Amino acid sequence: MADLVAYPMNGGDGLYSYSRNSNFQRKAIDAGKELIKEAVSEKLDIKSFSSSNTFRVTDLGCSVGPNTFHAVQNIVDAVEQKYQSQGHNSQLPEFQVFFSDHTSNDFNALFQSLPPDRRYYVAGVPGSFHSRLFPKAFLHFAYSSYALQCLSKVPEEVVDMNSPAWNKGRIHYSKSADQVVKAYTAQYAKDMECFLNARAQEIVCGGLMAFVVPGRPNGIPHTEVFVNTVIELLGSCLMDMAKKGIISEEKVDCFNIPQYTASLEEVEVIVKANGYFSVEIMENLRQEKPPPKVFAVGVRSGMEGMIRKHFGDEIMDELFDSFGKKLEESSSVLESKKSVSLFVLLKRRATE
Amino acid sequence: MADLVAYPMNGGDGLYSYSRNSNFQRKAIDAGKELIKEAVSEKLDIKSFSSSNTFRVTDLGCSVGPNTFHAVQNIVDAVEQKYQSQGHNSQLPEFQVFFSDHTSNDFNALFQSLPPDRRYYVAGVPGSFHSRLFPKAFLHFAYSSYALQCLSKVPEEVVDMNSPAWNKGRIHYSKSADQVVKAYTAQYAKDMECFLNARAQEIVCGGLMAFVVPGRPNGIPHTEVFVNTVIELLGSCLMDMAKKGIISEEKVDCFNIPQYTASLEEVEVIVKANGYFSVEIMENLRQEKPPPKVFAVGVRSGMEGMIRKHFGDEIMDELFDSFGKKLEESSSVLESKKSVSLFVLLKRRATE
Repeated sequence: MADLVAYPMNGGDGLYSYSRNSNFQRKAIDAGKELIKEAVSEKLDIKSFSSSNTFRVTDLGCSVGPNTFHAVQNIVDAVEQKYQSQGHNSQLPEFQVFFSDHTSNDFNALFQSLPPDRRYYVAGVPGSFHSRLFPKAFLHFAYSSYALQCLSKVPEEVVDMNSPAWNKGRIHYSKSADQVVKAYTAQYAKDMECFLNARAQEIVCGGLMAFVVPGRPNGIPHTEVFVNTVIELLGSCLMDMAKKGIISEEKVDCFNIPQYTASLEEVEVIVKANGYFSVEIMENLRQEKPPPKVFAVGVRSGMEGMIRKHFGDEIMDELFDSFGKKLEESSSVLESKKSVSLFVLLKRRATE
Repeated sequence: MADLVAYPMNGGDGLYSYSRNSNFQRKAIDAGKELIKEAVSEKLDIKSFSSSNTFRVTDLGCSVGPNTFHAVQNIVDAVEQKYQSQGHNSQLPEFQVFFSDHTSNDFNALFQSLPPDRRYYVAGVPGSFHSRLFPKAFLHFAYSSYALQCLSKVPEEVVDMNSPAWNKGRIHYSKSADQVVKAYTAQYAKDMECFLNARAQEIVCGGLMAFVVPGRPNGIPHTEVFVNTVIELLGSCLMDMAKKGIISEEKVDCFNIPQYTASLEEVEVIVKANGYFSVEIMENLRQEKPPPKVFAVGVRSGMEGMIRKHFGDEIMDELFDSFGKKLEESSSVLESKKSVSLFVLLKRRATE
């Protein structure tokens, strides 16, 4: 199961490609745009970077374009504006942008669709953001959008039939027994710790890190969260297929989506315990719910790779057909669910 | 024609892939191995880099593995040895390696075959090395193997039927009229100038650049050079097909291989005129001639992309069959031709 998470978004530009079906995520980026500008304007101390005449940005979990290009351009624009507003017009830095994602990401597609009029040097960085990707004190701004909800692996106990946390008949934790929820929560905390430790090494003191993820409003149960309900529906489609004998029930039992929907409270606790970063901005961004059919294709573009790997190619169309229908039937239930994105801005502390 | 050069080596790991057919180039890398060690040991002044604790290497025109991995590992090993030999064991730098090639290079294949036990951070950089790829003063060691013989484009006049440099009936310059040779020579000088200017910006003062290319011993005519004769034979196969009516003669007339075989003398003149680098080592490396059949597949893995783009897929098998046969028939002629690789080590001068 562990390697499921290395199946990234659908590459290329086909019907179910991420590049054509990432408008939902795009809206979160747009919502974060002003906050990034604000962060750079108010929180970035450009004097502390003056020894380097290059400003290095990374998008962690960039997938393919165009979302990642919009996001990094927004950061580059904001930093340039900051330099100009402080009268450093003649000392504008050069920009170097590192697009990073799993090794199996479609970097060929990413590189071939780079904006031709970009004002930055480009590099692609393959690997998991749960470990080190860059040398020490290398980055000035790390960004990540709709990626940090992905766990490094499915918590082992939820697919262990001898464990009290065995997640029988489900592919996600939100409607499951407490032990399952705890296993997911613990895995998320562990992964975030690894993520923060790696970035703490890589980001210069005073450097910024912003991330946007699908989130859970503080105090709201996991079952009341839109994305969780959607994944539960996908799981129920798989169980329907198991009951019809199309796939085996055991195969569903050992399949879990390695994704966790955190709240700002949870993120804050983890960041403070880690200690390397100060929390500068934390906000719940309103996240519009897309129409069921659009969302069905969006989920397909994001999760098809890992589902295909586990269940095989042949069930995909039937699965996503019934998933689309179920989303439509459940539209009134889904309407009542909470949908926010978390926006978090951290600053690398000056001391270890 | 200009975009032909953006058709890189065959990706993937199929029968005609570069990764399976690059042993010829590998031998040149091996021959340069000791020279790189010598260069790092004698010419690299690690004290001048002490402000950065990261040592940055790039392979320009890396294609896919494994050659590029052998080459960069050799550099990393040599730098580590140098640090250790100078008693800086505890201050070993972190290494960051930038694999660079045309945007259309198969970076997915490259990333998926990265050595798992590597001791360096990785990035892929898409783009042409005839222009800037990195920020200012970023690199400590730039390396390039069997790539700098590629021109940025076919010289325009050789495909212009109104020019005295029109290269009718040929796909390369070596047996052509003086005007054709001059056009190629001028394009090479211009491209090398662009290459050196870009690298002069990117490489730190005191940083090194090594490159290996198929070469021409000083004073030997272009017609006496092994690789040139091989390309001429490939051209004659295309003309045979034109005579048989399989392809049009006009199509051959406007197809030229954008590749030039320079001598050390020529390289030296260009480097000195450029002025940003000092020449530290220049050597002709003995280059073994591979058996005709092996070489035919090697040429296919390197040139198939651009030939297919111009003539279409359907002629490829017939072309390379007849090319293989012609290489065998010409083996005594080829035996008499000169085959060397140039090894050049340059150092970025301290002053502008």
